[in-house]
This record gives sequence, structure tokens and C-alpha cells, in this order.
Amino acid sequence: HNFATCWRIQISRSNGKMREKSLTMDTLNPQVKAVEYAVRGPIVTKAGDIERGLQQGQKHPFTEVIKANIGDSHAMGQKPITFLRQVVALCSFPELLDSSIFPDDAKQRARRILQGCGGQSLGSYSASQGVDCIRQDIAVYIEQRDKGVPADWDNIYLTTGASDGIVSILKMLVSGQGRSRSGVMIPIPQYPLYSAAISEMEAVQINYYLDEDNCWALDINELHRAYQAAKEHCHPRVICIINPGNPTGQVQSKKCIEEVLHFAYEENLFVMSDEVYQDNVYSPDCQFHSFKKVLYEMGPEYFNTVELASFHSTSKGYSGECGFRGGYMEVLNLDLEVKAQLVKLLSVRLCPPVSGQAAMDVIVNPPLPHEPSYLQFHKEKSAVLGALAEKAQMTEQILNTVPGIKCNPVQGAMYAFPRIFIPPRAVEEAMCVSLLLLEETGICLVPGSGFGQREGTYHFRMTILPTTEKLKVLLEKLRDFHIKFLKEYASLEEPKR
Amino acid sequence: HNFATCWRIQISRSNGKMREKSLTMDTLNPQVKAVEYAVRGPIVTKAGDIERGLQQGQKHPFTEVIKANIGDSHAMGQKPITFLRQVVALCSFPELLDSSIFPDDAKQRARRILQGCGGQSLGSYSASQGVDCIRQDIAVYIEQRDKGVPADWDNIYLTTGASDGIVSILKMLVSGQGRSRSGVMIPIPQYPLYSAAISEMEAVQINYYLDEDNCWALDINELHRAYQAAKEHCHPRVICIINPGNPTGQVQSKKCIEEVLHFAYEENLFVMSDEVYQDNVYSPDCQFHSFKKVLYEMGPEYFNTVELASFHSTSKGYSGECGFRGGYMEVLNLDLEVKAQLVKLLSVRLCPPVSGQAAMDVIVNPPLPHEPSYLQFHKEKSAVLGALAEKAQMTEQILNTVPGIKCNPVQGAMYAFPRIFIPPRAVEEAMCVSLLLLEETGICLVPGSGFGQREGTYHFRMTILPTTEKLKVLLEKLRDFHIKFLKEYASLEEPKR
Repeated sequence: HNFATCWRIQISRSNGKMREKSLTMDTLNPQVKAVEYAVRGPIVTKAGDIERGLQQGQKHPFTEVIKANIGDSHAMGQKPITFLRQVVALCSFPELLDSSIFPDDAKQRARRILQGCGGQSLGSYSASQGVDCIRQDIAVYIEQRDKGVPADWDNIYLTTGASDGIVSILKMLVSGQGRSRSGVMIPIPQYPLYSAAISEMEAVQINYYLDEDNCWALDINELHRAYQAAKEHCHPRVICIINPGNPTGQVQSKKCIEEVLHFAYEENLFVMSDEVYQDNVYSPDCQFHSFKKVLYEMGPEYFNTVELASFHSTSKGYSGECGFRGGYMEVLNLDLEVKAQLVKLLSVRLCPPVSGQAAMDVIVNPPLPHEPSYLQFHKEKSAVLGALAEKAQMTEQILNTVPGIKCNPVQGAMYAFPRIFIPPRAVEEAMCVSLLLLEETGICLVPGSGFGQREGTYHFRMTILPTTEKLKVLLEKLRDFHIKFLKEYASLEEPKR
Repeated sequence: HNFATCWRIQISRSNGKMREKSLTMDTLNPQVKAVEYAVRGPIVTKAGDIERGLQQGQKHPFTEVIKANIGDSHAMGQKPITFLRQVVALCSFPELLDSSIFPDDAKQRARRILQGCGGQSLGSYSASQGVDCIRQDIAVYIEQRDKGVPADWDNIYLTTGASDGIVSILKMLVSGQGRSRSGVMIPIPQYPLYSAAISEMEAVQINYYLDEDNCWALDINELHRAYQAAKEHCHPRVICIINPGNPTGQVQSKKCIEEVLHFAYEENLFVMSDEVYQDNVYSPDCQFHSFKKVLYEMGPEYFNTVELASFHSTSKGYSGECGFRGGYMEVLNLDLEVKAQLVKLLSVRLCPPVSGQAAMDVIVNPPLPHEPSYLQFHKEKSAVLGALAEKAQMTEQILNTVPGIKCNPVQGAMYAFPRIFIPPRAVEEAMCVSLLLLEETGICLVPGSGFGQREGTYHFRMTILPTTEKLKVLLEKLRDFHIKFLKEYASLEEPKR
């Protein structure tokens, strides 16, 4: 690097005309500038810095950074599902199909996937919509999940994680200028992919607030309010729902879903249901209902008309395979010409990663009771989901023992989104609390502002993914931190709770 | 499906108000509508239909569709590089690290990659820019490739194939309205990802024509012409170069690259060099020169100022691993604040597929001469590149024996882009020739219009990827077809050649 430094001096000495940068903050695409994505924002960058510092021997009041900022199961110690990885390894290196160390059901899955790939290789592009036989397996899975509601594999599209599908569908729906610009209804709090995509596409974000006092339930009156208000300045075209909720962890009731679908029917809205946490339901009183199944049960007038895109992923559930970037969407009642346009749009990116498609296939087509891998698979799956249920409950319980923190039940998904009550004098510091927490305890959370919250309220999102022991430590540290924080302000005023 | 049909009848009978579709061709995002992507366009759809028909016993004048429309090596029979797949399999199923069937160098690579992954799992999200140690390996590779020109791994970003990186960089550069709207200079003929992305972002496409009479060389005077003309109606901000060329197969000379970089320096343009075919150079007179190395050799005033993004991929070269969607970009001289914005933009999509990152790592970090896998790796790599060189030459030679076809040398990449001379009376049918060819011979090519061509000229793109035997058959069928086609018009006029 000495050479480079020397060069730089040379230039600054030359006093000649310096070439200006062509790309600066002034000339950057303003839509890119407008994008916000807190899940990987400044707090997380800081956490990475501290982590590197610890490795290099820097002293901190803790020995480890606990990253509870992102739903990254394997990074938090969850082990991969053996069967899934066996199938992916077999697909990656088919010579292993002759090896006796792999069970027959894994080999059968791998052979089927490879037969669907050009040249029987995971290295070929798939069709833009994904590998045919994987789309077929997904359709069968959906029919079984939804107790016989028909699923057509022609409506299934493999995606690069769920995010990719969500962005593709939104992209189709954004048009118009000024008051006829497309409006996108999203829950608040929301997963910031939605607000980021809306910013990037210059669509209009329409907030509907979830009801924190009612376990973050979706309130149909609030939907109407948000819709009517938005109609004054944009053209509401699509409603997004996240069920189970991220960051809010609620599981929607069938009645609530019916109301949403009826509303979408009446107002001619496109429905996008983000169902990536469909396998993550912990509360015994709750059950996952797919938007599709509820739509079906509302009768043909609904099922044959309402445009519905639903999304799933390899990243969550019990497999937690985020790195594979696998996912799919099912799109119902899409206009046939528009469907061709969607395929065209997807084809520009060629295809979703084929190993992610293979991972998705295993998730929708797991070992059956009579197959050799069933017992181990079932054991691993139950262990993951059991531990998550336990941690969901523990998180809620411990957080609710802390004065100034109130946490709704974590009915599903992978997060708690507790409200923190802060003395008025401390409000200005509220944005810094997460940073302070990180620096004092090594715990990395995301401030509620990254997901949206009602004005004057403060929250944070934390995952329930650390191991039970680590999560307990985290929650206790969090409690102590918050109590200490409140004490510093206690002389001035009692917390509002 | 009976039930569904029955429902539809019920609705049509009810005569009630039918819910209209919210998303139709009239309400679709017009930027999506404007996108074109011929590599997977209607000809390819038709080819798929015919293929399925053949499988179901339909009769055609051929027994097999040969898809020469897309650079999909494995689908055309190329075998994966063993070492690469061993590493990916080991990463996917680390229990194999204890198995004696894998060589030590593959295990060492896999261990290193896994150590860079959260929880040592391919299933964790990586950092948005990619796994640190893979970025480091890429920087070392670039330094070696460029004979010591320094590479900083902080400038390396893993991507989901090269396409993803290209779209991300373009997205940052698009801004302004009307005459200040960003203009993007692209070669014609081009790879249609560029025109598709430009349409989608409503940027202004600035065509500079490659010189067909000079082996598709880039002509600096043509660059100036295109730039000056564009300045009247937009703000030219970026120049894209594809070297070796797709679809044109030329390899740019060092002098030409110098001229382009000087031009970009003078006109303050951001440079995007698509170098995904850097390992695919066949002509003994040609050599791949990276834009970065040439920039370095032009001196510090250039190397420390010109903003340059260069792209590479797992999909091409000798590995042909398209399905893994691996790739990287190196971005030089990016403004520091803009760099943070780029990372933010990438973070919304979380990370590139980690198995694709692993594949990329093997390509930049292959077995060394003293390692156990070296001999086999070297043999496989040479066999692939040797066969491609042979097929490149054969394609040019056979095509140039056909009256009415003129093909430049395929110096590099994976395609021939021959010009076809068509009698004036046949011009109206020119667009249908590819379809006719497909229906009569089973050969699937992409018409030149999908890549852009000078008005009044006609071309097609074909890959050189079929096996040597199959490619020979393809070329002979093509010859016979074209001769027959010309004969039908011969009575009217001699071909213009």
C-alpha cells in the first residue's frame, strides 16, 4: 500500500484538475438513499466491530456478542436437519449416490431432483419458475397442508428466499403518478423489507397499525381507516399481511383472515400473505390458517377471483436454512397475460439458486413414516420446534417481570417485540438505548423504530434463537440493564406503566 | 378440477357484480411491460413445448431439441468440475469431513469456508457483502491474475450471479428526470440483461455499435459519437463493456481498453466491465486483459480516480455452474458514503446464496500443483477449455462455408453471432426464420433482434456448448436449412454477400 499512498501524494501535489467522482451522495439514486433496513443497520455494524475487537483482545464488560438482531437460526447454534443436508450433498456430488453412508430415501429425493435438472446437474439453470418436479412437490404439499384445497403447480414459482418473490410481485403492482400512484398497505410494526421495497419503487406506503393491546391482532376497522385516508392521496392496490407476524409474533385467527379477504375483495386489492413462519406456531391456543385455505372456504366467488400471492421460505420454520436462499410463492387468480409478464420479469434473473430449490423440495417433501429417515427427521424437527416454543414462553415471562417492559405473548415466528416505557426525560436517549445495551452487555437488538411503532411508543425486536441457556442470560442481562437505566431516571418521575 | 369448473359456472350464472382483476395489462407497472429478454423469450417457450411433445410421442422431423439459446454448460452435457462439487458437498454435509472418500485439499477448502460461516453452517446468512474469507480469497486471486496489482477485499462483494451485481450498481447510478436522466452506454449487440435493467429503471439506453467488420471490436470514435449524441437528451453517467463479448465473442485489445478508460476518465463516467468470460479465451492471438490491470498501468491519476466495477461469475469459465448463482464484483474508487449505501442496498436482500459463494471460492482458489486434487482438476479444466476452443473454431469454419452467412471468429466467450444475408423479399419473414428453424430441425437459437443489431442487418446467437458431435450435426442442419431457405428466394435475387 506504500505505492498507493505515494501516488495519492503525487496527485494532491500536482494541483492539476482532479477527476471528480461520478457517483456521490448528491448523484446517487434518491430512491436508494431513501431505503432503510435496520435489521442490518448501524447497531449491527457496531456489533461486528466489537466482535472483531474481542477477537483481537480488546477489553469489554462481556466476553461475547449475542446477536439477537436477525432470524439466523444456524448462526445461533441450531443444527441443520440431517435429511435436508444429505439430499443437498447428494445432489451436489452425485457420486455419493453409490455410497452406503446415505439412506435410500435421501437418495431417492436427490435422484428425483437431479432428473428435473438440465443434464441432471444442480449447475444448470432451471426454468425461470423453478424445477418442474419441485413445483409439483410444492403443490402436493400445499394441498395436504390445506386439507385438500386444490393447488396447481403452474401457479408455483420458486424464488431466491421469500424476499425475492415479495419484491417481484410488488414491482408488478407499482404504477401511476401523483394521486394515482400505487399504495401498498403494510402492517406497523412490519418487517422492513416491505418499507425498503416501497421506498425503492417510489410506491406509497400505507400504514395500518396492529393492535398491541390485543396481542398485536389485525383490526379490520383500522384497515378501513387506513384505506380511506390513503385514498385521498394515492391508489391503494395491495395489502400485505405477515402471518405469523414479524416482528410481532402474533398468529392470526381465521375470523380475522376472513375479514381481511372480504375487505380485499370489496376494495379490489391484491393480497400478499407472507407466511414464512407457517411452521412456527407455539401457543397451544393458536393455529396457522393459510390465507388460501380461508379464501377457499369463503366460497367460489372469493376463491376464483381474489388475487393472492403467498410466500414461503427455507430460511425459517424448523430448518432455518437462510444461507440457501430458497423459497416459493403461489399466485392465485393472476390475469393470464400478467402471468406471462411475471415469468418474463423473473427470467431476466435467470433462475433461483438450484441448491435452494433442492432444500425447498426437502421441506415440502420430508421423510414419511415408513421411510428410513423418518425417525431421525421427526426427532430433529420436534427438538427444534419444542425448544423454540419453550424459549418463546420464557422470553415473554422474563420480560414481563421487568418494570417498564411489557411483552405480548410470542404466539409464533421467532421474535419478541416488547414495549419499553421510558421516563419522559429519557426519551431523547431512547434511540441510543440499544447502542448502550450493546456496549454494556454485548447484546445486539434492533430498535423498534426500524419496524415502525405508534408515535410516542418504544420497542425493540429480539430473536428467541439463542440456546435456552444463552437466552436466559441475555434476558437477565437485559432486565438488569433496564432496571439500572430506569433507576438513573427514577428520581425524576415514576415510569408510566 | 370439476369442482372448480362447477364454481365458475355458478358465478357466471349469478349475474352479480364480478370482482375485477386488480392487476391487468392496463394496470401493470409499465416499466415491467417494457422489459425484453429474448434469451428466454417466445422461441425458447416454443422449444419447451416441442420438447414436451416429443416426450409424449408427438412426431417431429427430428428426435431431439438442441437448445443453443443459452449459455447453460451442464444442461448441454458438460460435467461438473469434481473438486468444486466435492467442496460444496463437504460444506453441505460436514459429516463427510470424516470420510476417506474425499481428498484432503477439498476438506481443507471446506473447513476454511465453514469457519467463515455463522455457526459453521452454509445455512446461516452471510454478511451482505459475502463471507469474509471468500472475499479475501477473491482479492488474492485478482492480484495473481493481474500480476500484482493490489486488490483490497473490502472492495469485493459476493453476488447472486453476475446479473445481481450489475443490477445493483446500475440502480445506484440512475437518477434525474428529463434531460438530466441518467444515460447508460451499452454495446450493440449486447447481453439483454442490460437493456432489461435499463427499461426497468427507466434509465436512458445509449447504444454504441461494435464494429462487425473488425471482429466486433469496440471503436473509440463510435463511443464519442454515441456520447455526444446522447448528451443532447440525457446525462450519460456510465459505460458498460462486455469483455470477452456476449453475444459477439470478441476479446478486446489492451489498446482498446486503454482508450475506453481514458474516455471514461475524461467524461467522468462510471465504468462497468462485465468480465464473466475472462477464462474463456480461445484465439491464440488474443489475451484477456482486465479493465483493472489496464487502469493500473495507465498510472495513479487513473487508478486512484476512475470508478470501476468489474463482474465475475461461477456460471461461465470452465466450471459452468449457472445453477449455483455465484458471482462477485470488485468496485474501485467508490465514494465512501456511497459504499455504505451500496452495503445497505445489498442488505435488504440479506445475502447471496452461500453455496454459490462456496463455489466461487473454489474457482478463485483451485488446487495447487502440490495438492492431491491438482492433476484431476487440471485435466478436467483443460478438457473443458480445449473442447470449447475446438468448437469455437469449428463453428466459425462451418458457418462461413454457408452462402449467405458470415461469422466473425469466436475469439472468446461461448457464442457465435453470425450475420445472415437475406434476400429483400424474405426480410419480412426474417423474424420467423428462427421459429421455422426450430420447427423443421429442432434447433433453438435466439434471433439477433434480442441483442440489438444495426438496422437492416440480421443475425442470430448460438452457443458453442453442445458436444462436438452434436454441434457438428447442428451446424450442418443449419447449413442445409439456410441453403434451402435461400433457394426458395433465389429465383428473385442473388444474396447480397
